[in-house]
Amino acid sequence: MNTNNLSVTAQPTIGFTSDNIAGTSPQVLEALARCNVGQESPYGNDEYTQNVERMLCEIFETDVSVFLVPTGSAANALCLSVLSPPWGSILCHPESHINNDECGAPEFFTNGAKLVSIEGDNAKIDPVQLQAKIRNKVGDVHSVQPSVVSITQATETGSIYSVAEIEAIGAICRDAGVRLHMDGARFANALVALDCSPAEMTWKAGVEALSFGATKNGVLAAEAIVLFDKSLAPEMGFRRKRGGHLCSKMRFLSAQIDAYLRDDLWLKNARHANDMAARLSEGLSAIEGIELAGQTESNIIFCQLPQEVIDNLISQGFRFYHDRWGPGVVRLVTMFSTQPEEVDRFVSATKQLLS
Amino acid sequence: MNTNNLSVTAQPTIGFTSDNIAGTSPQVLEALARCNVGQESPYGNDEYTQNVERMLCEIFETDVSVFLVPTGSAANALCLSVLSPPWGSILCHPESHINNDECGAPEFFTNGAKLVSIEGDNAKIDPVQLQAKIRNKVGDVHSVQPSVVSITQATETGSIYSVAEIEAIGAICRDAGVRLHMDGARFANALVALDCSPAEMTWKAGVEALSFGATKNGVLAAEAIVLFDKSLAPEMGFRRKRGGHLCSKMRFLSAQIDAYLRDDLWLKNARHANDMAARLSEGLSAIEGIELAGQTESNIIFCQLPQEVIDNLISQGFRFYHDRWGPGVVRLVTMFSTQPEEVDRFVSATKQLLS
Amino acid sequence: MNTNNLSVTAQPTIGFTSDNIAGTSPQVLEALARCNVGQESPYGNDEYTQNVERMLCEIFETDVSVFLVPTGSAANALCLSVLSPPWGSILCHPESHINNDECGAPEFFTNGAKLVSIEGDNAKIDPVQLQAKIRNKVGDVHSVQPSVVSITQATETGSIYSVAEIEAIGAICRDAGVRLHMDGARFANALVALDCSPAEMTWKAGVEALSFGATKNGVLAAEAIVLFDKSLAPEMGFRRKRGGHLCSKMRFLSAQIDAYLRDDLWLKNARHANDMAARLSEGLSAIEGIELAGQTESNIIFCQLPQEVIDNLISQGFRFYHDRWGPGVVRLVTMFSTQPEEVDRFVSATKQLLS
Amino acid sequence: MNTNNLSVTAQPTIGFTSDNIAGTSPQVLEALARCNVGQESPYGNDEYTQNVERMLCEIFETDVSVFLVPTGSAANALCLSVLSPPWGSILCHPESHINNDECGAPEFFTNGAKLVSIEGDNAKIDPVQLQAKIRNKVGDVHSVQPSVVSITQATETGSIYSVAEIEAIGAICRDAGVRLHMDGARFANALVALDCSPAEMTWKAGVEALSFGATKNGVLAAEAIVLFDKSLAPEMGFRRKRGGHLCSKMRFLSAQIDAYLRDDLWLKNARHANDMAARLSEGLSAIEGIELAGQTESNIIFCQLPQEVIDNLISQGFRFYHDRWGPGVVRLVTMFSTQPEEVDRFVSATKQLLS
Repeated sequence: MNTNNLSVTAQPTIGFTSDNIAGTSPQVLEALARCNVGQESPYGNDEYTQNVERMLCEIFETDVSVFLVPTGSAANALCLSVLSPPWGSILCHPESHINNDECGAPEFFTNGAKLVSIEGDNAKIDPVQLQAKIRNKVGDVHSVQPSVVSITQATETGSIYSVAEIEAIGAICRDAGVRLHMDGARFANALVALDCSPAEMTWKAGVEALSFGATKNGVLAAEAIVLFDKSLAPEMGFRRKRGGHLCSKMRFLSAQIDAYLRDDLWLKNARHANDMAARLSEGLSAIEGIELAGQTESNIIFCQLPQEVIDNLISQGFRFYHDRWGPGVVRLVTMFSTQPEEVDRFVSATKQLLS
Repeated sequence: MNTNNLSVTAQPTIGFTSDNIAGTSPQVLEALARCNVGQESPYGNDEYTQNVERMLCEIFETDVSVFLVPTGSAANALCLSVLSPPWGSILCHPESHINNDECGAPEFFTNGAKLVSIEGDNAKIDPVQLQAKIRNKVGDVHSVQPSVVSITQATETGSIYSVAEIEAIGAICRDAGVRLHMDGARFANALVALDCSPAEMTWKAGVEALSFGATKNGVLAAEAIVLFDKSLAPEMGFRRKRGGHLCSKMRFLSAQIDAYLRDDLWLKNARHANDMAARLSEGLSAIEGIELAGQTESNIIFCQLPQEVIDNLISQGFRFYHDRWGPGVVRLVTMFSTQPEEVDRFVSATKQLLS
Repeated sequence: MNTNNLSVTAQPTIGFTSDNIAGTSPQVLEALARCNVGQESPYGNDEYTQNVERMLCEIFETDVSVFLVPTGSAANALCLSVLSPPWGSILCHPESHINNDECGAPEFFTNGAKLVSIEGDNAKIDPVQLQAKIRNKVGDVHSVQPSVVSITQATETGSIYSVAEIEAIGAICRDAGVRLHMDGARFANALVALDCSPAEMTWKAGVEALSFGATKNGVLAAEAIVLFDKSLAPEMGFRRKRGGHLCSKMRFLSAQIDAYLRDDLWLKNARHANDMAARLSEGLSAIEGIELAGQTESNIIFCQLPQEVIDNLISQGFRFYHDRWGPGVVRLVTMFSTQPEEVDRFVSATKQLLS
Repeated sequence: MNTNNLSVTAQPTIGFTSDNIAGTSPQVLEALARCNVGQESPYGNDEYTQNVERMLCEIFETDVSVFLVPTGSAANALCLSVLSPPWGSILCHPESHINNDECGAPEFFTNGAKLVSIEGDNAKIDPVQLQAKIRNKVGDVHSVQPSVVSITQATETGSIYSVAEIEAIGAICRDAGVRLHMDGARFANALVALDCSPAEMTWKAGVEALSFGATKNGVLAAEAIVLFDKSLAPEMGFRRKRGGHLCSKMRFLSAQIDAYLRDDLWLKNARHANDMAARLSEGLSAIEGIELAGQTESNIIFCQLPQEVIDNLISQGFRFYHDRWGPGVVRLVTMFSTQPEEVDRFVSATKQLLS
């Protein structure tokens, strides 16, 4: 496999590459051990799974259908497959994960729907541009039909849609009869940053299906598909199985999500990751000669560094992606397990190199 | 969801329903905890994953490519998708899992290949019947083209292909230019029963791609696709990602398989499950009026019981599938966690009810 | 391409191979010439196409949606694709064209639905067996879901469902919430044989989508998808285009169907083909030592002939399929263009060889 | 169906809407009548079809495999399906027909490949931009893989790639191991304009599969897939059948292409259409106040007209698309059947309205 500019060696010392280089929260492992008792009905017909569904109903303050799957790509592709016909178009930002990083999983699961780019600053769909395209060739048999808008919250660059922005997009969708999906791989990071309720950030603003991420924020391998439109549930059941994503020993996925939601672990982890990003952002901003791109809204930072500094940081054992978004552009991702000292070491190393 | 004759309640007491009602071996959980240290490269670019590949190369005494996935349906469907074109036919036994229990996952992943039934006793493909059909309409553009034979080892009824039988099927495939896949959801159970080497049961007999099962035998949620034909590996990489089956925190899947293979845990677990089935089989055979269907070769037993006895056993807290394979037909599955006392309690309860 | 037992050379003299070796009725060619005047809106937005839809509404005595396509496989696969989800099963006779002769087109267009065989005498689905299987694993997420029954009228062997038989199947479908499709590649041959109305043979008996064949009965290359459930029309429009089956100069397809329907050409052609089959059947029956398989109901005859006779007939310039359905089994198909003298020559040649 | 700005009524008087509003050349109809004699082997096993393949081998001065299909969308989608894996990307111009006008047929036939836009002036792919993107994320399992470049000759706006431009693109493809497809819906129009050989415009420049258009240039409903890489032929055979595009009475498609190629009808028709466009272009250019967009290279013209003039022309019975490419932008397409007087009438009507 081509690893491009993947600056990760076998034993990274301090990594800001991505939130998936972290391990799992101890509470999650404890939950796995705790549920490893006796026999349990397979395929989700168990207490743990039913309980997780109840917890998510409470968290979202409405009746939802929940389908646990092992990966975020599965969650996204399955959501899109129940929202779009094969001849549908899925309107998304050109920088979105579904557009760039899933090797065509959305196209595969939808049986060939087409992803159409809607531009916008900060990796966010611009409502004006969406409005201009959402009725493109509706009813014209020669063209794919606008069927879903997919937004990522927090986005791939760490920016965040405000509730008002989601509502605006939701209203455009509703008017046009187009469904709204949210890729919430970093849902918790956005939520704690906005300080709103999960309901406000989703169904109240028009979101009908959510990929509720957990793996990037402390879980081992589990994501929840949350359907606010419960009529999609039967189809989702067949599609999940058919996609090979119905885990037989489901209790072990449910236990992870249970631990993740219990005692606000998900919110605490996200808050910590965001705090670490803020600390990093502040530290770097104070260095003369550094240029940060955009505001730090969640747990991702972009900045510009001289190649020499990049090389030197790597040689010191720091790990991060660079040069993927332009020459000298560095991306730094913090996570639930990032330590303040790690942040400080990175800042001071950078400072020294730049002075 | 319709659970048909699924006689499993929320709190089963002693279950013989399927090997997926078991939890996980403690060694597996310990391995998860042990690998939860520090950061690790995602998507399989980590030491754990590379090590698992090495272990499987040693176990199979040849150079193999390994792809870990979270479910057995994914392993099967992905294997078939690299072995068959969309216009291929996949020859399998009518009772096979791919034919009955995966909601069309093989059809989905192959983009519409056709499963064609080859009959045979004991859920095993009969080589004579295979020979008769394997060149069916080859080159005829109006027909799907025989592309893969898929055998299950151990089969869905617990029977086992002898090495000679696999070799015979392998030879037929080779002659016809058709690929050979093995669904090894219960690979270990078959292996310890045959007392042969993994190599003899697979590539030496002609198997080119194997779904190496682990979840049913003590693992949490991990299966290994083992490609003996390594030229299939690049395509598999893209297909796994596209199917949403490339786990980001791969080390946690690898750690499971590592623990599973280490110190022969996989063989011990399988031997135990088989022993429990033998004990159950012996116990039941000794009861007057009971009819066991076929020999007990691995960890599955079929027998015929009066409806009254079935009902009564269930009311006593025993759990098993019944009436799916005919009126009064009961299936009993033992597993790595089955206790001798549980077997004995079932036997004695049945004996009492039948006397 | 492997042509198996395809006994057709470049210049057949008298062929009974299949009804697609015939040319086209002169009226069809005249209609093509007649409509080749001036410019016309493309893609079906023309008078000819709208007129054909009107004609079919009248013929079927109800409001239908019509989609013209160039082949029968396209008509069948498109019909099935709007009736079955990807996780559906399509119940059909094992000898059906969709099951054997379309290289998986139904699987392709439905995105992986599964064809399930329902047995029955004379290539017709047995309602008792259908009833037994039509609720198979409904609601079980591990299994494909019974979604469509597809019957062929007249069947691939020339047999015909009575109206009562279609009604019985229609009632079973309705009860089970399963859709009913009719492959009418030889619709006209069945209709004139039954002497019922098109409505009685279709929607009144429960058929919801019909592949209305024309090519085998005198047309050049045009078939009509007739949707009795008009709610399926919008989806069909997108699927037809996406399948590459929306012809731009549609008037030339419509002109063919127009000519086919006008002045009862379709009924006359079918009656003639059936008459020729009856003449052939009578002639052969009168020969000592010949065994005809089943009754001659439409335009297809099966009989058993010694290999020597087969070889000799071929050397005399007669063309037909043989040995595909068993050793010495000969299939003879008559068509709108078959001449009585050709039939008589075949009968007398066979008689002479057998005496 | 939404017909947007489709200014075509049931009885157009003088249409420049598209070349598919024309009928068919008389020679094509005569050929249909001529081949309607006696019986003929179906599915392309006939003399007519073999002859067409021979003719195309001669025309292209190399050994090619030919597959006739009824529509251009089928030709394009089938070509792409043998050139790209499901996880491939197809690099094409944003204005290309495959990207805009086939309702996702390429995505459907390739089982979910992704169309990626490469910009360039005049609807032509810019080699510099192609070069920059053709190795995008090669080997990165998270991304679709560049697999095919598809160019349209003549393009959707009537512009034409020079032989040197095709060679440049061909060289880039060859270097990158990417296949090259040509959508030749208006192949003849480009060929006569360039005055080069068919070989120079295709395989000599690197084209491996060609959609050889005929319907837009005087044929009824037939296009030829021409494979310069003959190793793709077996797969194409299965895919064509599976797509429902194998016509049973193939002789009638072959007869059309035969007539089209015979006596240079295809070149004469194309030359005439181009001449009519040149005449139209000249006439309009001479009018004060008219702005033609770009050069007139084949049979398509774009110009800017005041809304009042557009409305008035339509009310006089002229037909053309307008406002699809911007306010006041008019597209005029000439065809083999366009008469000089029709052109002159349009020019003089426009002149009068603008003065």
